[in-house]
This record gives sequence, structure tokens and C-alpha cells, in this order.
Amino acid sequence: MAETPIIRFGILGCADIARKLSRAIYLSPNATLSAIGSRSIDKAAKFAAANNFPPSARIYGTYDAVLNDPDVDAVYVPLPTSLHRRWAVMAAEKGKHVLLEKPVALKVAELDEILEACRLNGVQFMDATMWMHHPRTAAMREFLSDVERFGQLKTIHSNFSYIGGPDFLTNNIRVNPDLDSLGALGDIGWYCIRAILWAANFQLPKTAVALRQPVLNEAGVILSCGSSLYWEDGKIATFHCSFLTNLSTDLTALGTKSNLRVHDFAIPFEENVASFHVTSQFGWPMVSERSVECEVPQEALMVREFANLVAAIMRKGSKPEERWMAISRKTQLVLDAVTASIETGFEPVEVVSPLGE
Amino acid sequence: MAETPIIRFGILGCADIARKLSRAIYLSPNATLSAIGSRSIDKAAKFAAANNFPPSARIYGTYDAVLNDPDVDAVYVPLPTSLHRRWAVMAAEKGKHVLLEKPVALKVAELDEILEACRLNGVQFMDATMWMHHPRTAAMREFLSDVERFGQLKTIHSNFSYIGGPDFLTNNIRVNPDLDSLGALGDIGWYCIRAILWAANFQLPKTAVALRQPVLNEAGVILSCGSSLYWEDGKIATFHCSFLTNLSTDLTALGTKSNLRVHDFAIPFEENVASFHVTSQFGWPMVSERSVECEVPQEALMVREFANLVAAIMRKGSKPEERWMAISRKTQLVLDAVTASIETGFEPVEVVSPLGE
Repeated sequence: MAETPIIRFGILGCADIARKLSRAIYLSPNATLSAIGSRSIDKAAKFAAANNFPPSARIYGTYDAVLNDPDVDAVYVPLPTSLHRRWAVMAAEKGKHVLLEKPVALKVAELDEILEACRLNGVQFMDATMWMHHPRTAAMREFLSDVERFGQLKTIHSNFSYIGGPDFLTNNIRVNPDLDSLGALGDIGWYCIRAILWAANFQLPKTAVALRQPVLNEAGVILSCGSSLYWEDGKIATFHCSFLTNLSTDLTALGTKSNLRVHDFAIPFEENVASFHVTSQFGWPMVSERSVECEVPQEALMVREFANLVAAIMRKGSKPEERWMAISRKTQLVLDAVTASIETGFEPVEVVSPLGE
Repeated sequence: MAETPIIRFGILGCADIARKLSRAIYLSPNATLSAIGSRSIDKAAKFAAANNFPPSARIYGTYDAVLNDPDVDAVYVPLPTSLHRRWAVMAAEKGKHVLLEKPVALKVAELDEILEACRLNGVQFMDATMWMHHPRTAAMREFLSDVERFGQLKTIHSNFSYIGGPDFLTNNIRVNPDLDSLGALGDIGWYCIRAILWAANFQLPKTAVALRQPVLNEAGVILSCGSSLYWEDGKIATFHCSFLTNLSTDLTALGTKSNLRVHDFAIPFEENVASFHVTSQFGWPMVSERSVECEVPQEALMVREFANLVAAIMRKGSKPEERWMAISRKTQLVLDAVTASIETGFEPVEVVSPLGE
């Protein structure tokens, strides 16, 4: 059997989240830290030194240099959202596989340019929504899909919030209209929307109606908002995201035969074990807890899965796995509809793709 | 010290819920089961025999007879909502104190007639929302009011659902337009609204916008619905109630410094102990559980509190406690606004009192 290739990662920029991803790449047996690029080569060097980059890793003072490095197979792009289109498209054109931080784009038309570039160049695309790769997520999916146990899904609620604090609310890229104009909706509402779509087995809602009273900063960036979502079959969902509220990451899915509740869906409270709660099958509906062990952090499982897909393309000439593109695109479509509903004064907005679904 | 009087209860009708209340009266040291009236005297006799009524209790074939019984101090009224105005007003006019099942009325104007009759006749009014009287509720209130620990309340979500089943959905009074035309909104949405108002320290929201896609039966009775609620100070809440979804009774309150979550707020999973979850004060926000013991069932605590208020009026000439009227009325005002929003096609409806707040 041919040896499985070790996928060589380059990282564009030294964002905070890139530290976590560097560790994930370091912990993944099929991935290695190959290059880091920043607009400041000093910053890049310090980042590499602090994050377990091997001595052989290249340190660059530009993002282009990473993309031109023939010893980079894949790039992780944690740049501000407004830069995603430019750098993700360029990465694909340079034949690099793309692991793209969320939110993937400012709107679906931008994402479509990225996805088109990936398709044209035969590279793998995946967004960096880590919890999708936790084994708990698979266990919860199995529970939700068990018609005998869970029944039919009727209602979903999710919230994701954290306190930004005065410095964050003034200086963070997540509240800067030129860098991350989607604000809290892009940064954490993304997770709520993804979790709701995931619970609905990625069936798109037909309509979004934003909740009223979103909080915007002076530049019009969302600090807090929410939405209701409606499906053809009668399912409904609500979510709320905020930079102005204590940390919460909840998902509740109510079915006709049971409920599923998880209070740390995006980032488990513990790295090695994570739990969720379901209605007990017997007697007065007490809640029973199910725990799922996780040998490696969820972000390392994400890197491993991404690198496996890249390896299959590189070694066997496999086609890129389209599923991850579809999931990103659906998340972005709902995000766009929520944004449009806020912009139109909380009118219902159809969740429709410019290209059809 | 004068002996505390034992308040003598009459019950109007043999509703299922009256069994629980009979037990609660039986368990309350300051209350006794004095009379039961039903349109069928046989049914009343069977009910009394099955529910620990003492031999001295009177069995009547009409509701009027209970109200005319001089040995009845207070009545518990679990009749269908459409009958509340008639019988609660008459009870007050006969000088009986009124413990009224929820939803208290079909609309606030009806409730106002009931409250006016209670005021004019100097009798105590309380709605039978049992969980308000559980010691856990006081513990949670203390936590929410602790600015150092909980901070400022920002967002609330509640859901209450259960599966009605085919027979329920065909025959139950809760889906009969002539008896309980508010359907799921009155039966269980009442609890969500009450819980949200309770969390907001009974500050009224200024606006309600119902969620879309409520499910109505052929007669127009709500089987499933929800709403968003908006306060002047930026707080928002959402709730969902349904007869078509597995049992759930959740309340989540998110503050600037902590969160409170309870999964059995209306009826605790266990009778003698109940818990809620708050964000831990230290480190990565794990959730910590707080348990509160309850020596007697919450419905018996409700009866005890009600009977104490009645005793103070009877023994010391105290004024009826107005707080319970105000709480009922605010709950009904929000319920009315949600109903109006559904009826007007999900338009925002101001939560305003016909009499001013």
C-alpha cells in the first residue's frame, strides 16, 4: 500500500484563531506546518516559533509567497472576511486546497466565485467549522435521524453569544466594517445557522424573518441580532447571536418523540469528552446525558478529514468532495437572507440561491 | 396568638387538573376540601371519593350550590376558559376568594371584569400557575437579580410542548373553539409568557411579533405557535409552544455575566428536588447545577400561599394581595398581543393595556 502523503499546510496571516489551527495541524498525523505568511515577516517568524512550526517551515512576508511555494499543498485562510474572495480564489488558482475560516464570504455571490475557482482547479474546499468534525456531532446526527427514537423534527433554537468588551467593540476586526462587516452574524450567527441547518439535515428553510432590535455599531456592523426561519414542511427555527451577552452556545432540537439539547455545541466545555442531553425513553421525561469521548481536539479532526480528502485527490486523482461546498453555500444563503431581512426592516426574505439550489 | 384559620375550598368541576389541586389542598395544613360541584352529582361524588375529600365535604350537582355554600371560603376554578368570566365573577360576588386556572381569560377585558369583581368584593385573586411557588423559582429569581453574578438580562427563550395525540386533538377541551379557543397558546404558551415576564422581573415588553406558520385546527384553534417579544431597553425574547411536539419545558435567560437554564421549569422532573444550571463563575464557562429541595409539591405551596393570603383577609381584615392580579394581567396582555399579531398576519402589536398599565 502506498504511503499516505502528509499534507503540507501554509497559513495566510497570524490571526488568533490560526494558533488553534496550527496546533490542530501539528496534532494531525497526515498534516504538517509547512509555511506561514504575514504582511510582517517578523510577525510570521514569531508566530512560527510560538506554534510548533518545524525548522524546515518557510517564513514569508507576503501571502503571495505562501501561494507560490511549491512545497505547500493546502492553505488555511483565517484572514478577515472581506479578503476571502481575493485570497481563496488566488489560492485555488495556484492549485492550493483551501480550508477557509468562517464566515466564508460577505455574500453568496462571493462564495460562488471561490467555489468556482476551486472546481476549475480541482482543489478541495472546506470551511473551518470545527464542531462539524467532533464525534459527538456524529452521535447527535445518528440520534436525530432515528425516527423511532427522535421522531420528526419540529422546532430548533440556537444561541451563540459572548461578551466582546470595550476593547473588542472598538478595535476588533469582527466589528470593523471594512474587514468583517457581518459582525456577530458572521462570526457567531454563522454557527447558529450551521447548527440549525445541520439539525434539519441541510434542508434549506424557505423563508427568513429577522428578529427586530438588532444592535449595530456606528459603522452599521451587527453586534447582536437574531432570526426566525421557516421550512415548507412546517418546521421552524429561531436563533440569536450577540457580542453583548455572556458566553452561550446552545442548540435545542425538538422532535415528535424526543428532544436533543446541547449547551456547548460549537466548542465543547472539555476537549476530551463532550455530552448532549436527550429525553429519556422511559417514564416521566427525565433528561438523560450521553457522553462521547474525543481523543484529539475537534479542530485536529477537521484538519485530518480535510487532509484525507486532499490526499485522495493528490494520490488517487479523486474528485474533490463537493459536500463541504454545498454545506458552506447553504449556510451562506441563510446568512444572506437574514442580512436582507434586517436591511429590509424585518420583512420575510425567501432563501433562494442566485444559481438555484 | 389566635389560631390560623383553615381555609375551606370548594372546587368547580371535575377537570383532570382538579385532582392535582385536591391533593394540594389535602396536603396544605391551612386548607381543607370543603365542597365539590359538578353538572353531574354522581361525577362529583366519585371525584370526592377518589380525591381524599373528608366525609363532611358537600357534594353538589351545580356550581351555584358551591358558591352558595356558607362553609366555602375560597373556590378553585378549573373550568374551561370560556366559562371563567361567568363563574369567577359570580364567585367573587358571593364573597368567595378565587384561585383561577390558567389561562385566566380569553382576553384581558374579560380578566378585568373578574379582577374588578374581586376588588369590589375584597376577595383574593390568584392564577394557578404552580411553578411560581416552587422554592427553586425563588432561588432562580435571586440569581437573576444578582447584578454581580448575572449582570443585565439580555435575551430569554422558552418552549413548552407536548404531544396531544389523536384523541386529544379531536376531543380535548383545549382544542375546542367554544371552550378553550386559545388552544396551545393559552394552555402552554401561557407558561412561556409567564416565565419570560418573570425573568424580566415583570417588566412588560413593548411589542410582540408572532412567529409565522402557527398550526391551527379546522376550527381555528392554535395547536402550535410562537412569538418574539421586544422591550424598550433592548431585551428580546422568543418562545414556542406546541401540542404537536415531544414534551419540553425550557427556559433560558442570558445575561451579561452569566446564563440561567432550566429544562423543567413548569413541572419539575422530580417532586422533592429541582435544579437549574448557571454559568460557572470561574474558568472556562462550564455549567454548574444548583439543586433546591422542595418538601411539598409546588401546587401545595401555591395553595398554602393563597390560603395564607385569604386567612389574613379573613382574620385581620388585610387587603387582598394585588401582586397576583398584576402578574395575571400582564401575562394576559402579552398573550392578547401575540394573538393579535397572529390574527393580523404577524404584524408587530404593541403590548398596551386597555386601561393603561
